[in-house]
Amino acid sequence: MSRKIIVAAAQVGAVHIDADKKQTVQRLINLLQEAAEKHVQLVVFPEATLTTFFPRHFIENQEELDKHFEHGEDITQSPDVKPLFEESRKLGIDIVLGYGERTPDGTGFNTSVYYSASEGKVLSKYRKVHLPGTVEPFADPAATNQLEKRYFTPGNLGFQAFRAPGLVADAAKKSTAKDGESTVGKGDPIMGMLICNDRRWPEAWRVYTLQGAELLMFGYNTGANMSHLWGSKPMSPQDAEKEALFHSRLVQQANSYMNACFSISAARCGWDDGKYDLIGGSSIVSPEGHVIAEAKTKNDELVFAEIDLSECRQGKERTFDYSRHRRIEAYDLITKQTGVVEPELL
Amino acid sequence: MSRKIIVAAAQVGAVHIDADKKQTVQRLINLLQEAAEKHVQLVVFPEATLTTFFPRHFIENQEELDKHFEHGEDITQSPDVKPLFEESRKLGIDIVLGYGERTPDGTGFNTSVYYSASEGKVLSKYRKVHLPGTVEPFADPAATNQLEKRYFTPGNLGFQAFRAPGLVADAAKKSTAKDGESTVGKGDPIMGMLICNDRRWPEAWRVYTLQGAELLMFGYNTGANMSHLWGSKPMSPQDAEKEALFHSRLVQQANSYMNACFSISAARCGWDDGKYDLIGGSSIVSPEGHVIAEAKTKNDELVFAEIDLSECRQGKERTFDYSRHRRIEAYDLITKQTGVVEPELL
Repeated sequence: MSRKIIVAAAQVGAVHIDADKKQTVQRLINLLQEAAEKHVQLVVFPEATLTTFFPRHFIENQEELDKHFEHGEDITQSPDVKPLFEESRKLGIDIVLGYGERTPDGTGFNTSVYYSASEGKVLSKYRKVHLPGTVEPFADPAATNQLEKRYFTPGNLGFQAFRAPGLVADAAKKSTAKDGESTVGKGDPIMGMLICNDRRWPEAWRVYTLQGAELLMFGYNTGANMSHLWGSKPMSPQDAEKEALFHSRLVQQANSYMNACFSISAARCGWDDGKYDLIGGSSIVSPEGHVIAEAKTKNDELVFAEIDLSECRQGKERTFDYSRHRRIEAYDLITKQTGVVEPELL
Repeated sequence: MSRKIIVAAAQVGAVHIDADKKQTVQRLINLLQEAAEKHVQLVVFPEATLTTFFPRHFIENQEELDKHFEHGEDITQSPDVKPLFEESRKLGIDIVLGYGERTPDGTGFNTSVYYSASEGKVLSKYRKVHLPGTVEPFADPAATNQLEKRYFTPGNLGFQAFRAPGLVADAAKKSTAKDGESTVGKGDPIMGMLICNDRRWPEAWRVYTLQGAELLMFGYNTGANMSHLWGSKPMSPQDAEKEALFHSRLVQQANSYMNACFSISAARCGWDDGKYDLIGGSSIVSPEGHVIAEAKTKNDELVFAEIDLSECRQGKERTFDYSRHRRIEAYDLITKQTGVVEPELL
């Protein structure tokens, strides 16, 4: 049984701090229209797509800060963003969109939603679990901040895999599945969302694929020259960008392979405000860990490919058949212990 | 504080099914003597180093099968292998050795030990947790078996990190550490052992680095043309070997990076009995995921490098500072659930 979908990462280039949100949304709509010409069925937009990557700025004025968030429960009703969902519905293309979410009680989350064009609604919401950076800004005014731990609360929705209807023609349905017949890998595609730094945490991928996820999708804002944050040795800006891209690619390829799933990554990239450099590298990766398609620029760019979800089966049924091979009795510490406990000194 | 050690992977080429164990051990001693000339302090030998990779053979005769195991509690007293440990002690080089272990009660394990030259004893034993392959041989007599699940029981010792004394000159000691002073990353090196297939399971790496492991060590026997086992699409023998090497390298690099630890991998490789091809690729990888040194051949070969364990700190204290960034409340499924549970059909 073939389970083919045409998918895309919609990479988004520089978004300056004074960008008009309506114009930014129009850029996303342009990418969506390009996707329609390519017969794409699902487009993944980056993390915090609607504004510049504001956690790099120390913003003390609450009103100023709030401009970078979407307010309320339902992003599809945000006046500036609504046209994107309307276009998605009109073109019949599902979308994943990342944005800063301000809940009615005032909590901030780094959020993404999966919007189903065929259902005309948000099917799933994910709030970023692994927030990098610091609560307090750096003392050195020349250092670039990463204040996600200040502006956001860690996601409280866990990693909930979900099925997306309307993408695969011959998916087994609840109404037609016979008693006792295995429908594993045969229903509507099983998906999960991550956001940026989550991709470096194998726990996140594993929780999704323990639910059978065949496709993981994430956006990112990753500094090309943030070696002071990411822990690399002092290096030239060119080498630092190469290193950041190397790590991003490495974890996407390896985690796709070790979880026998496809993955789509979409970068917010380029030179925000002409001075903050973010890596590109948006890509689509196979369950064997190979890059199928990747961005060639650091601008707005659609990266697309036809993928066959049934290719996940070879990994899921052999090397990574969890039911035969995983040994949870040896994994205790992973959920018992947050930090490191070293063996005693000799 | 510099925490430098000179380490090596001792790659071992073909070992035929009729090989004389004494001669195989002599090859290991030769590699150890070469290591001494290079001032190496720690040598990692492959998985099941002492015999051909026997799980590829369906051996029904118990006596025949038992020839491939070391018997009893203490490998250092196995008559054929004892000279290796004596040489290790004499040269002052610690070793990791993989072998088939038959316990006094008759259980088989795929085991490796860490032998400390300065202590003159086995400091730690590890029994392979993630056994690949099948219990029953393939029906097709032309297929190469992988009978680890038949010959071995899954390891019952978990993933126990340990400290190795005598390698780092200025390691903080229990007797000198002051009350309340942090000794994190300052004592004798913290290590862990994996075996072959374990390297593909991020859970294994994580359990070790939750104990502060700075160096993970593993041997492997990985078929260069076992695409029917590893789940790859039909491909030429050349492409299959490239793919097997790609996956092996990918998981070692990514897991070293995501766990901010060094790793050493040692291959049993080459053409056993002139017909079973195993990949080489023994290597030493940094906590940033870069290959520092790697094998150039598929024969007996020493791959060595000086590593500075203090380079783990940059990852462990920033991007992968578990205490600040891990969110165990979202990881439940990892230890609750062995196999996959898919979301309901729509």
